[in-house]
Amino acid sequence: MLGERINEGDDVLLYLTSHKTYLVKVERGKRLHTHKGYVNLEELIGKQYGAQILSNKGVEFYALKPTPRDYAFKMQRKTQINYPKDIGLIVIYSGIGPGSRVLEAGTGTGALTSILAHFVKPTGRVYSYDVRLDHLEVAKENLSRAGVLEYVSLKNKDVTEGIDEKDIDAVILDMPTPWLVVKHAYSSLKGSGAFIAFIPTIEQVIKTVETLREENWFVDVETFETLLRGIQVAKDRTRPQTFMTGHTGYIVKARKVLPK
Amino acid sequence: MLGERINEGDDVLLYLTSHKTYLVKVERGKRLHTHKGYVNLEELIGKQYGAQILSNKGVEFYALKPTPRDYAFKMQRKTQINYPKDIGLIVIYSGIGPGSRVLEAGTGTGALTSILAHFVKPTGRVYSYDVRLDHLEVAKENLSRAGVLEYVSLKNKDVTEGIDEKDIDAVILDMPTPWLVVKHAYSSLKGSGAFIAFIPTIEQVIKTVETLREENWFVDVETFETLLRGIQVAKDRTRPQTFMTGHTGYIVKARKVLPK
Amino acid sequence: MLGERINEGDDVLLYLTSHKTYLVKVERGKRLHTHKGYVNLEELIGKQYGAQILSNKGVEFYALKPTPRDYAFKMQRKTQINYPKDIGLIVIYSGIGPGSRVLEAGTGTGALTSILAHFVKPTGRVYSYDVRLDHLEVAKENLSRAGVLEYVSLKNKDVTEGIDEKDIDAVILDMPTPWLVVKHAYSSLKGSGAFIAFIPTIEQVIKTVETLREENWFVDVETFETLLRGIQVAKDRTRPQTFMTGHTGYIVKARKVLPK
Amino acid sequence: MLGERINEGDDVLLYLTSHKTYLVKVERGKRLHTHKGYVNLEELIGKQYGAQILSNKGVEFYALKPTPRDYAFKMQRKTQINYPKDIGLIVIYSGIGPGSRVLEAGTGTGALTSILAHFVKPTGRVYSYDVRLDHLEVAKENLSRAGVLEYVSLKNKDVTEGIDEKDIDAVILDMPTPWLVVKHAYSSLKGSGAFIAFIPTIEQVIKTVETLREENWFVDVETFETLLRGIQVAKDRTRPQTFMTGHTGYIVKARKVLPK
Repeated sequence: MLGERINEGDDVLLYLTSHKTYLVKVERGKRLHTHKGYVNLEELIGKQYGAQILSNKGVEFYALKPTPRDYAFKMQRKTQINYPKDIGLIVIYSGIGPGSRVLEAGTGTGALTSILAHFVKPTGRVYSYDVRLDHLEVAKENLSRAGVLEYVSLKNKDVTEGIDEKDIDAVILDMPTPWLVVKHAYSSLKGSGAFIAFIPTIEQVIKTVETLREENWFVDVETFETLLRGIQVAKDRTRPQTFMTGHTGYIVKARKVLPK
Repeated sequence: MLGERINEGDDVLLYLTSHKTYLVKVERGKRLHTHKGYVNLEELIGKQYGAQILSNKGVEFYALKPTPRDYAFKMQRKTQINYPKDIGLIVIYSGIGPGSRVLEAGTGTGALTSILAHFVKPTGRVYSYDVRLDHLEVAKENLSRAGVLEYVSLKNKDVTEGIDEKDIDAVILDMPTPWLVVKHAYSSLKGSGAFIAFIPTIEQVIKTVETLREENWFVDVETFETLLRGIQVAKDRTRPQTFMTGHTGYIVKARKVLPK
Repeated sequence: MLGERINEGDDVLLYLTSHKTYLVKVERGKRLHTHKGYVNLEELIGKQYGAQILSNKGVEFYALKPTPRDYAFKMQRKTQINYPKDIGLIVIYSGIGPGSRVLEAGTGTGALTSILAHFVKPTGRVYSYDVRLDHLEVAKENLSRAGVLEYVSLKNKDVTEGIDEKDIDAVILDMPTPWLVVKHAYSSLKGSGAFIAFIPTIEQVIKTVETLREENWFVDVETFETLLRGIQVAKDRTRPQTFMTGHTGYIVKARKVLPK
Repeated sequence: MLGERINEGDDVLLYLTSHKTYLVKVERGKRLHTHKGYVNLEELIGKQYGAQILSNKGVEFYALKPTPRDYAFKMQRKTQINYPKDIGLIVIYSGIGPGSRVLEAGTGTGALTSILAHFVKPTGRVYSYDVRLDHLEVAKENLSRAGVLEYVSLKNKDVTEGIDEKDIDAVILDMPTPWLVVKHAYSSLKGSGAFIAFIPTIEQVIKTVETLREENWFVDVETFETLLRGIQVAKDRTRPQTFMTGHTGYIVKARKVLPK
């Protein structure tokens, strides 16, 4: 088995525990300082992904290859969707895949954007709207690092005022007023295309669902919430974890139809 | 907006309600018979996806374009994973995407296979093992219909006896004894590659997690379960749905490392 | 060990499985007919509670002594609260016990009434309001059978128009418009007394909580929902049950204060 | 409305928020010091329960009358059951009420003991076993304060070695090895009496359930877990709370029968 080698300039996810990881760029002469000592990143060059590296205090780290989820996780802000349980469901219900054209709003830090781009590449494209220029600047940097910027069009536009693109496969919203985007989503989507919104409060859900139903433009309107429980597995001590996230947001989904 | 047209020979998901849909091939002279009357499939030719079509009793159906999830759902057997909440999480944690090489076992009806193939196409590949030839025959037909057979190698082999492929990005297991595959998965995976198992009972989870930890071959070993609640949204009657699926299975995930 | 004997005229819960039980009155010459054969109830006279009795087909039944929960369960109608998970929480949060004076509305079939009466007896009392006379008639019979009618005052009155009783320890509501009772509950409750409402929809919850907060009459206003998962325990097949009840209702609780 | 007055020597629950309360004994010349200023407890004498009292900084506190749950909550240690969701279910499934005779182990701080005693008083009794004398001393003080010590027999005994009492209505266990108590519980219980165990890990559950089933001594053996979600209710911001307790313990229940 040959394995993939780490090169200078590559990103590595240095793993200490499941809850303590570091996303670093491998450069000569650079050190990662942690509470478990420092790691000479230069030593990683030429090693395989998965390799062990010791800190100067002899603590073991592992050099994992960052996945799209790792990149997204490291971009996260607390106000934004970034839970695998929700992102996974959105990706499945959106029906997207290589070649899909996706409209997303808001961009935020680009966390969800980067995962969507990962799944539509190399021939698809994500059009990502955000009203805030500072968000787009952060997102641009994050998407570039995650290696997916070339598949994304970042747009400094208010999606509630309209969507430029047509023949979109899926509109995916993570912003405060998704009901104001329903009409624009309809114009922009292909027939049968997916409308998906990630929504924190039940009042927002109700407004969005009512708007989706108003004109008979959408079918298959469903609302879900997902819960993820970590299970502590250890001989004679197996049990769900004591604390869990009780709520992230609701997911509303629908599919565009052409009545009459 | 031009929209995509339905051609003779295309698959269409005829939608009546979220819980009543029909996956049909559009052919001249063919009718779909339902409890709401029959639909002349020939009438769909030339219409856009999303178009409405009436049954002979005047009931409205909509011609949706099947997504990978729709195909997988229609392949389902009750013994097999087929929940968007689980599949989505598996896809995200596996780190796979266009170009990935995935090892899957068992194939079953090909439901999960078809979704994995969808995400790794056009340059990736799914190697799917099953001990039962009848499963593989059903899966072959299902994958062909879903348009992803060319990205899949179906193998009539017992995965607990070994894996032929090397440099695999993710091993994804939905079979009764995942702990017997840990050693083979290790040999087959790239460094940093993902091991994921979907497991119904807690005793199987414990054995799998203990095996994963035994040799220090894997890190980031975590176990989850997901719950999906449908929310009934209707003016002044909004509430979670009365009945829900209480359990599908646990998801165990880990990443291969190269100690010392 | 002497044990308690079954007498003629006693109620017995004949147990076949956890999901198949029969609440019967022991009478001479009476048979209980089931799909597993019939049981001569007369044979139970003089046996201890817990005793086995065989049907004419040789199937084993057990003669359990009905608990308050068993009685309540057998009174149930689908529109009414009757889940141990909810009733237990209501009882704990209400602070009631032997001697408490409780106001309940609506009575319904008397299921919750019977449990409340059980916990406040012998010196406490439940005042139970219902607008429907037919409900009260059914409840009267049910409460009599459960042996707690003497601790209950059934009242054919609309609780939204006022509550006659003062110095009440807890007001417990299971009716469609609890927000219309907040003012009356305040007048009726002792200082520090508990207001509790069991509420199916989120819109009703919002109205009730807003009303509770309006006048600064209540503190400790909290809303909960409980979920109960059955666990299938069996060697090497242990797992949560496949199906579960996803929603029964929300519980809103508060405590009366005397501001200024 | 007259209302109940606070006397010198009474306990009061001083309420600041749902998550910040103080259980205090009302004494002349005593102050409660908090981060919101101090309260002169003497001022409470002669006021009604529910009355407002201001700290020296003008912050509002409310003088609630402690419920059994409030007392239990203030006794809690993190290793012990003390969740209303679990205690409520245990009380309902145990079938206990005024007059019941209950066997409990272990006593711990007396939190569950105090609630059980509250429900069986004035004619019932709780026999509570603990191997640790220091636990019993703490529990004695706590039960005395909660006003229920006279209904409890505290016993410094290892319940896995046997139970002295006969004709018990319910055996309720919150200790590490409930399976070692099954035989003793059987001897001690009335026919039809309830066995209930609160158990943190799934391995303990499996052992307990297998032991309960071994001899055909118990029927209606069921295992549950309960989840409690707090709901944040606020105009246009209604949603489940972000964090929740993911696991406290499983509840195993069964009823004694007399086979043959």
